[in-house]
Amino acid sequence: MSMPPRDGLVGVLDAIRAGEGVTQPRLVQRLGLGRTVVAQRVAQLEAAGLVVQDGVAPSSGGRAPRLLRLRADAGLVAGADIGATGMAVGLADASGRVLAQAHEAANVADGPDAVLGRVEELVAQLLDGLAGAPPLWGIGVGVPGPVEYATSRPVAPPIMPGWDGYPIRERLSGRFAVPVWVDNDVNVLALGELRTNPAAAEAGDLLYLKIGTGIGAGLVSGGRVHRGVNGCAGDIGHVAVAEADSVICRCGNVGCLEAVAGGAALARDGRRLAESGGSPVMADILAATGELTAADVTTAAERGDPAARAMLGRAGRLVGGTLATLVSFYNPGLVVLGGGVVHAGDHVLAAIRESVYRRSLPLATRTLRIERSVMGEAAGLAGAVHLALDALFAPGRLARWLPVGSPAGRPELAADTESLPA
Amino acid sequence: MSMPPRDGLVGVLDAIRAGEGVTQPRLVQRLGLGRTVVAQRVAQLEAAGLVVQDGVAPSSGGRAPRLLRLRADAGLVAGADIGATGMAVGLADASGRVLAQAHEAANVADGPDAVLGRVEELVAQLLDGLAGAPPLWGIGVGVPGPVEYATSRPVAPPIMPGWDGYPIRERLSGRFAVPVWVDNDVNVLALGELRTNPAAAEAGDLLYLKIGTGIGAGLVSGGRVHRGVNGCAGDIGHVAVAEADSVICRCGNVGCLEAVAGGAALARDGRRLAESGGSPVMADILAATGELTAADVTTAAERGDPAARAMLGRAGRLVGGTLATLVSFYNPGLVVLGGGVVHAGDHVLAAIRESVYRRSLPLATRTLRIERSVMGEAAGLAGAVHLALDALFAPGRLARWLPVGSPAGRPELAADTESLPA
Repeated sequence: MSMPPRDGLVGVLDAIRAGEGVTQPRLVQRLGLGRTVVAQRVAQLEAAGLVVQDGVAPSSGGRAPRLLRLRADAGLVAGADIGATGMAVGLADASGRVLAQAHEAANVADGPDAVLGRVEELVAQLLDGLAGAPPLWGIGVGVPGPVEYATSRPVAPPIMPGWDGYPIRERLSGRFAVPVWVDNDVNVLALGELRTNPAAAEAGDLLYLKIGTGIGAGLVSGGRVHRGVNGCAGDIGHVAVAEADSVICRCGNVGCLEAVAGGAALARDGRRLAESGGSPVMADILAATGELTAADVTTAAERGDPAARAMLGRAGRLVGGTLATLVSFYNPGLVVLGGGVVHAGDHVLAAIRESVYRRSLPLATRTLRIERSVMGEAAGLAGAVHLALDALFAPGRLARWLPVGSPAGRPELAADTESLPA
Repeated sequence: MSMPPRDGLVGVLDAIRAGEGVTQPRLVQRLGLGRTVVAQRVAQLEAAGLVVQDGVAPSSGGRAPRLLRLRADAGLVAGADIGATGMAVGLADASGRVLAQAHEAANVADGPDAVLGRVEELVAQLLDGLAGAPPLWGIGVGVPGPVEYATSRPVAPPIMPGWDGYPIRERLSGRFAVPVWVDNDVNVLALGELRTNPAAAEAGDLLYLKIGTGIGAGLVSGGRVHRGVNGCAGDIGHVAVAEADSVICRCGNVGCLEAVAGGAALARDGRRLAESGGSPVMADILAATGELTAADVTTAAERGDPAARAMLGRAGRLVGGTLATLVSFYNPGLVVLGGGVVHAGDHVLAAIRESVYRRSLPLATRTLRIERSVMGEAAGLAGAVHLALDALFAPGRLARWLPVGSPAGRPELAADTESLPA
């Protein structure tokens, strides 16, 4: 079998995907490839329907070079961001721009059949809604629990009963005949920030910290998601914190971060204060609604309730204490904070920042920024979409898009789940 | 200026550097490059004097392919591993094999003039001792403090008075007219393990933890040293630990890991026990030698002294508690433990392992190994040597080795410090 040469191909495509105003002379300059090689690679990508020459760049003497851009309409990817209590499903073009999306409540604890069945319906509906749509190339999925990335299977996910070891890839791939990639929700959020937030892309080394019902982190090292050898890097919900020795966590250990500073802990402690008379404001909310959520604690804090403010400040300090250790260890350029607890008010953010700047190595905070996610929940869907795009355009896979022998039209993409890259 | 094409060049050289029994057909297979490109790159590397065809591999039908190997004798690099109280300086061939080395006591607090002056003398002596030696290509240096990797300058290093901002690169480069790279000692140790310990190379994601006078970590992500945006990733000596609130650290904070579990802390606490009558064994050592070091604490523990054993166990648990957080966060495949405290006995190692396996996320410890460094201190010199080799053979720099136009003998390497890669 004779394969066309493809060295430099991924570099050429990545540069075209990432940049505005890309031309062949610029690629020669930026990638350090020869002119002939760049011309060949561009021709291959054109033949594969991935790249188009479109318009001209300003000339620097001689013939003006043609602009190269990704053919965003060449194909579609689907993304599914599955959370504990809701999901977002969307279709995006080859550039990652979301063309259509649907959001709805969903209980991940209903199990994979119910939840993935609904994902399938939504993807099918969205595809039907795009008239004359190009072919679906692949699917990216985020789920709220640990995932073995190589196999796309959840591994003992604590809040996903029935999902342990479930073959998500095989199921969705069987339904849509395209390759599928799955990762945990926080890695997907981190990837979404990295690909859509210029500050995140610039930082290169990034830490995404999600404080929702649980607490987890996503790590980016040199522009790549760092997943660790078992794919569970960032699973910090159950690290021990100093001031929390007496609280028993659902995991069976004592003093877990999540058990004292996560959304579930805030709801639990808030209810206790409401019932014990420690917070009249939260007692009113409890009496009016019959429940007390983490969001209610924030509402109470915003109404000036000292007990609620103290709770949020303590949660922020506990998270900040752990984050200070991680910042000294990892030295990121940017910490992005996401999740309901962070987005609810300023008390938590201020306390987190204070702890980090007080306790981290000074050199590690010299240029550090700690920001709320500007993307918010949209980062999840964006990350799921880019999870699929990055995998589709990765070195081992991209070669299969190329016409073998003479240039021959459209790429073919089978649901070759056996040979999916790890 | 016409540059020869060089796409795939670093990949070809890396494969030849890393492997045994490398042939052109194997490179075609492994790198996914075309046969013509591989042949051109090999010819360029031969012309540059870096690669030689040497012997034949078993044929799989047809003419037996020739074996490719790095011309290890093409050039030399020097490595200097500068510690708090001693230094190792060595010369290695292009494969990283150390050919000559010198070890001696040195006090880093004597300042850069004294210490680097001695490094220069030792490098010059070792070069003189190698008759007919090939040219020196570069120098790698490890120092016991934070370094801004891009500029090779120490940044407020706590135990290196006089070194803050010192231009180590410019000084050594001026003396030997070769490029110089500098990193902190623990990154250099991690790199040394990565390049010389097969288990470390296999793990890919690696955490090196050094417990000496101070405590620090080196991180490897996907086979690359993760330095962080300020180059201070791994600086965990001053993270807060739970049980240490009352100890004031030399950094001014309370509860720092290093202040309760480092070698200096062991010596301080051991002396206190010896003087207060809490440990007759350590009291004997103090009386006999007039001092009490961390090594003495270990000696006492090995003689059965319960107080010394309790101290080492507590230090191991405190380090292990922090390491458990880092293992959950980073999910490495291998934790390598180095430094005097770790090498002194089993009490610390056992306590560290126990804490990590008890407190880390179970998935993160499923395949985790926690081992003492097999290289020991030799990893520092090996790492310094490979710091230089990896930089010399990196994409941006390797191109300069290639003959421009027609193949033309030996590479030239100027001390182009202005354009050194960051």
